Amino acid sequence: MVQKKFIMAVSEGTFDKGMMAMMMGNTAASMGIDTHIFFTFFGLNLLKKGKNPKMGGMYRLFTGMMVKKMKKIGIDSYQEQLEMARDLGVHLYACNTSMEVMGVKKEDLIDGVTILGAAAFLDISADSDMQLFIG
Amino acid sequence: MVQKKFIMAVSEGTFDKGMMAMMMGNTAASMGIDTHIFFTFFGLNLLKKGKNPKMGGMYRLFTGMMVKKMKKIGIDSYQEQLEMARDLGVHLYACNTSMEVMGVKKEDLIDGVTILGAAAFLDISADSDMQLFIG
Amino acid sequence: MVQKKFIMAVSEGTFDKGMMAMMMGNTAASMGIDTHIFFTFFGLNLLKKGKNPKMGGMYRLFTGMMVKKMKKIGIDSYQEQLEMARDLGVHLYACNTSMEVMGVKKEDLIDGVTILGAAAFLDISADSDMQLFIG
Repeated sequence: MVQKKFIMAVSEGTFDKGMMAMMMGNTAASMGIDTHIFFTFFGLNLLKKGKNPKMGGMYRLFTGMMVKKMKKIGIDSYQEQLEMARDLGVHLYACNTSMEVMGVKKEDLIDGVTILGAAAFLDISADSDMQLFIG
Repeated sequence: MVQKKFIMAVSEGTFDKGMMAMMMGNTAASMGIDTHIFFTFFGLNLLKKGKNPKMGGMYRLFTGMMVKKMKKIGIDSYQEQLEMARDLGVHLYACNTSMEVMGVKKEDLIDGVTILGAAAFLDISADSDMQLFIG
Repeated sequence: MVQKKFIMAVSEGTFDKGMMAMMMGNTAASMGIDTHIFFTFFGLNLLKKGKNPKMGGMYRLFTGMMVKKMKKIGIDSYQEQLEMARDLGVHLYACNTSMEVMGVKKEDLIDGVTILGAAAFLDISADSDMQLFIG
């Protein structure tokens, strides 16, 4: 069977978008799918060292409650999911233009992230079986 | 001609995202496209019995006005669109993990919804011609 | 090599979503990809004559700062990107139903926009290699 290829772009930095990207990405990688996640604009926040993303807008204050609820039913924290993604070989990319715009430096990001431009993202997408834009 | 296959994931529970998913889904199904919609996270709200979703944030109060405007130009309400989706054979799925996290029970959801996990969603996606993430 | 085909649907009218759609669209077109962007719901705002979109919610006030920061690192304004899209042959579509709902007239939109329905959007999508829903 030919290996499937899956790419997500993540443009929001909220807890819910981050968790969905990680849970879909890690599930895909566990299924043997070649999995790529490209973080752009506010999504870059999700690649920052030690970052615990929050829910958006007025839900911000409920993030802790959500994390606890998730833990109770066996869902790892965002940081644990991110680490699992690296262990599973999920390709993590940071958008170079967004880094410049947002003033994010390579040393702000976790290890194992590749810095890419939009053209490289589109090259991977054009060659993939599934593309999702989260955000 | 080979039948095309289309899948959407819906992660927000707002009126506008719900209407777009339904209008695209019902149009696709009417065109003979094999259509699947997977509701996850806040999107689960859109599958609740008798739910009339609202616009997001500060637009919440304008939902009624929007519904009326739509009715005037012949666009059915969200609940009518949802019923039409079932009639047209659109496959409606609820994310099992999101149900646990959000405390949503099977009996809270309309009839005809299949409960699925992320792996099943990815299997359908990998085999589809079009994937869109709404939210 | 067979030319790749790329379609985006844009359902939000904010600065960040508009810029991402334009930057991805223009990069794709520059790479020789056949590029299509379908603007629906709030996304219609992005096609209005002389429109300078703003960031969403509480970030609205930071739009000017973001535009300046982008200019400094060589990123054109939204209106310049939109003009470039037309010059590069990016296909720009406005959703006809959204125009009715939002009370947007053809003369409110920039030149070179084609008015289409959901079925036409799905036809293009079904025939494309990449689909992204921005919003």
